[in-house]
Amino acid sequence: MAARLKYFGWGREGEGFDADEEAFLLSRVRERFGVDTFDERAPPKLDEINLPQPRLAPPSSLASLCSAERYDRAAHSYGKSFIDAVRGLEGDYAVAPDVVAYPKSEADVAALFDWAAGAQAAVIPFGGGSSVVGGIEPRFDRARWRGAVTIDLRELGRVVEIDRASRAALIEGGAFGPALEAQLRPHDLTLRHFPQSFEYSTLGGWIATRSGGHYASLLTHIDDMVESVRMVTPKGTMETRRLPGSGAGPAPERMVIGSEGILGIITAAWMRLQDRPRFRAGSSVRFEDFFAAARALRTISQAGLYPANCRILDPDEAYNTGSGDGSAAIMVLAFESADHEVGPWMKRALECCSDLGGMAEAEAGADAHREGAAGRWRNAFIRMPYAREITIRRAVINDTFETAITWDRFERFHDSVKAATLDAIRNATGRDGQVTCRFTHVYPDGPAPYFTFHALGRHGRLAEQWQAIKGAASDALIAAGGTITHHHAVGRQHRPWYDRERPPLFAAALKAAKAALDPQGMLNPGVLIDP
Amino acid sequence: MAARLKYFGWGREGEGFDADEEAFLLSRVRERFGVDTFDERAPPKLDEINLPQPRLAPPSSLASLCSAERYDRAAHSYGKSFIDAVRGLEGDYAVAPDVVAYPKSEADVAALFDWAAGAQAAVIPFGGGSSVVGGIEPRFDRARWRGAVTIDLRELGRVVEIDRASRAALIEGGAFGPALEAQLRPHDLTLRHFPQSFEYSTLGGWIATRSGGHYASLLTHIDDMVESVRMVTPKGTMETRRLPGSGAGPAPERMVIGSEGILGIITAAWMRLQDRPRFRAGSSVRFEDFFAAARALRTISQAGLYPANCRILDPDEAYNTGSGDGSAAIMVLAFESADHEVGPWMKRALECCSDLGGMAEAEAGADAHREGAAGRWRNAFIRMPYAREITIRRAVINDTFETAITWDRFERFHDSVKAATLDAIRNATGRDGQVTCRFTHVYPDGPAPYFTFHALGRHGRLAEQWQAIKGAASDALIAAGGTITHHHAVGRQHRPWYDRERPPLFAAALKAAKAALDPQGMLNPGVLIDP
Repeated sequence: MAARLKYFGWGREGEGFDADEEAFLLSRVRERFGVDTFDERAPPKLDEINLPQPRLAPPSSLASLCSAERYDRAAHSYGKSFIDAVRGLEGDYAVAPDVVAYPKSEADVAALFDWAAGAQAAVIPFGGGSSVVGGIEPRFDRARWRGAVTIDLRELGRVVEIDRASRAALIEGGAFGPALEAQLRPHDLTLRHFPQSFEYSTLGGWIATRSGGHYASLLTHIDDMVESVRMVTPKGTMETRRLPGSGAGPAPERMVIGSEGILGIITAAWMRLQDRPRFRAGSSVRFEDFFAAARALRTISQAGLYPANCRILDPDEAYNTGSGDGSAAIMVLAFESADHEVGPWMKRALECCSDLGGMAEAEAGADAHREGAAGRWRNAFIRMPYAREITIRRAVINDTFETAITWDRFERFHDSVKAATLDAIRNATGRDGQVTCRFTHVYPDGPAPYFTFHALGRHGRLAEQWQAIKGAASDALIAAGGTITHHHAVGRQHRPWYDRERPPLFAAALKAAKAALDPQGMLNPGVLIDP
Repeated sequence: MAARLKYFGWGREGEGFDADEEAFLLSRVRERFGVDTFDERAPPKLDEINLPQPRLAPPSSLASLCSAERYDRAAHSYGKSFIDAVRGLEGDYAVAPDVVAYPKSEADVAALFDWAAGAQAAVIPFGGGSSVVGGIEPRFDRARWRGAVTIDLRELGRVVEIDRASRAALIEGGAFGPALEAQLRPHDLTLRHFPQSFEYSTLGGWIATRSGGHYASLLTHIDDMVESVRMVTPKGTMETRRLPGSGAGPAPERMVIGSEGILGIITAAWMRLQDRPRFRAGSSVRFEDFFAAARALRTISQAGLYPANCRILDPDEAYNTGSGDGSAAIMVLAFESADHEVGPWMKRALECCSDLGGMAEAEAGADAHREGAAGRWRNAFIRMPYAREITIRRAVINDTFETAITWDRFERFHDSVKAATLDAIRNATGRDGQVTCRFTHVYPDGPAPYFTFHALGRHGRLAEQWQAIKGAASDALIAAGGTITHHHAVGRQHRPWYDRERPPLFAAALKAAKAALDPQGMLNPGVLIDP
């Protein structure tokens, strides 16, 4: 039995940075802000948290699926964004759900919907709770809704059926990453969808939020891996047909993918799988600057080589993660295949790099993705989310935002977004901060840049300081033509910018579609649209 | 100035089979049905056609964009399906539009919508008119609508802007295939979307119908080539943001792609382009039977090699098109790249073939796609649509239908659909016919099989005979788990089976979305949903 998920911080109880990791992290923070000591605060203990009285109680037929325990309500109040951590640190649990339900079947989900509809309760679909955009916090008009029921899918975690010939599996929506991979492994199959939250997020959550995963090119989002999907809505269950491809009207799956819990709960999906890779080639390539690395990546991505990994880190990002010395941009490049040696692919990609001044760090080898700069980056990437519970106690504001932009606009876009964010940090905190950039995914027509920012804030003002920085960064990226999110989703935090990005007539159509499936508007109110 | 499009038959006036092609075609037909002579009928000449009186006249502000001429109305009555040709042959033009409009701008489209709304007219969006599913015929409740206005986009055919860095172009919706490629060629760019209708279909039509094109794998449908789209609806113009990728809610483009003219008219799109290929390798591979070829193709498609072409023809299909002697199935296999030699890709694909008994026809070469069996197939494919105007005069019923199915079900699926279609031919015509199969596109989780059937019918009963065969084939493929269309679209002819394939709750959502954009339900009534 795994330890339970933390109510504050990343992962499960007992996990986190070891002493060496914490020392490295804090040395980088001290160096960045030129400080020796911090103003330290600790989050309240679970039994110190002030939770509002529950306003709802389940009927006896559903009572065995439901909990109003202190731990369940606290652990389902927030996702994992910076502002969520601030509220947790400050002991603000005003939005806690009244009831947390753990359905064991689709019939349970439907019964919970019926109860919620009768009780005028809002419903929050919950996978692993790793949302960084306010997607799962029960925050909405408390006058309109008489309570909040969070429906946690963790009991629906099975791989139900495997079709080896088509390399596909029917997987339940509440399956966590490691559990679903463990069930596929005996069949020599893998979904190979590894978002940073892999251990603490679920298939249903990935589909609902258009999660971005392992593959830097081609299968970037979960979207294309969905063969068919089942969703329970307040009006009944909808299931799309299992098909490798179709041209019959607008794709019904695409209405569900990215619906962020406003149309229904994704209870299962047939997913397209991969054979486990047997052949690999990887390397790290140094570039004098980030834009040169970006131009090389553009060439590779337009060449039709489809590397599994082709991420670039700017010099500061490389330095902060221990992947570089800060003097060069780093490209982490890897090919993998279950079928054939990938040498010719790698050779051509490295030619594209050297044409633009890239110097391969070492002989490209099969284990290169675990070694050298690439390996250091990979390790830092997986461990990174644990850092916040250390830094936020010290009033360090660090957060990330990500986007996508076409190549023709990328360099100006990068500079304007970075400058706006640095300005906002100075204005909000009275001190210089840092903004770094990497690419998480890449397309023939443009990259998906991912920005990290660091600022030293002040306890008591963290929420306001963060909001000023996040708002300025979001304004800049929307003004310069980007998307408010490439793979973190919209939730409640990105709504103002999503509303500017999205065509108004699409909003009208989506609102009408929601009204057809959720006439009371009880599912995740405030996410994507106002019901 | 190109000749005008035929009102009956394929392509432009003056085009069609030459004497040798016609002789080859008819020799195959005689051999297939064991007949020497045919009962021949000719379609009415244009001035013999009986057109209903127009019920509508445009206001003077729009008169210069509109025509009620005999040619325009007759040439916009039908698409290019078999049943359309039967009606043309029989001189049945009861559905002719009252007015055909040729807008020169988005403002013109909006003005036409306003006029139609006031006049209680239905509106039919029209690209090249190559629909084979009744997508563009003004067939609907004549009591509810006081007339039909067909809006033909041919005047909106420009490539407006090119972004070389991102390899993308803004192209107007009415651009025909050859015209848009001609405008891209000076920039060394190409869309490389070559449906069989390439010469007589438009970008807007491709997007509205989820057209399938040149690439047999990966970029199979137009869907993934759409970077952003503009659509004029009765409620205004909707434009999605130009982005290489996004995760911000359900993808708005995906509501437009496949909407078949029921939500609005697609006036322009930013399209993802390709560099013109410089490296090629191609071959034809013989297999003892079709299922062995299918298993080889499954291996190739799951290997991640992404051939541009990997079509298989069953022995009869190969024989009928002159690509084989009827004793073996043929795989047409080709790789292409603008960036690198594709030898290693081809080598590995041929290994997959030989592992399953495939014998490569000849040394794979750069021009193999134009030579040998592959070349003969390619030529037959392009010329095929001209055959019908010859055969239908002789009461030959030939038509195609296409679908997709996962690999685990493919062999049983193929056999049951083929058997049901052969039975239906016998029952409907009292004589054996022929059903052949090829694959047009292939996915890791399944193929897109394309069936052709041949029957000898009787003048006066062709519509009824065709309907019986088409209905039985469609019933069989829906019952066996396929889609009613992989890339021909739904239109009016596939509605009964689309209604069975599509989740009812998706239909409810789509209907609600349409009502938000087209409150009167005037756009293409009866297509996809009943307004």
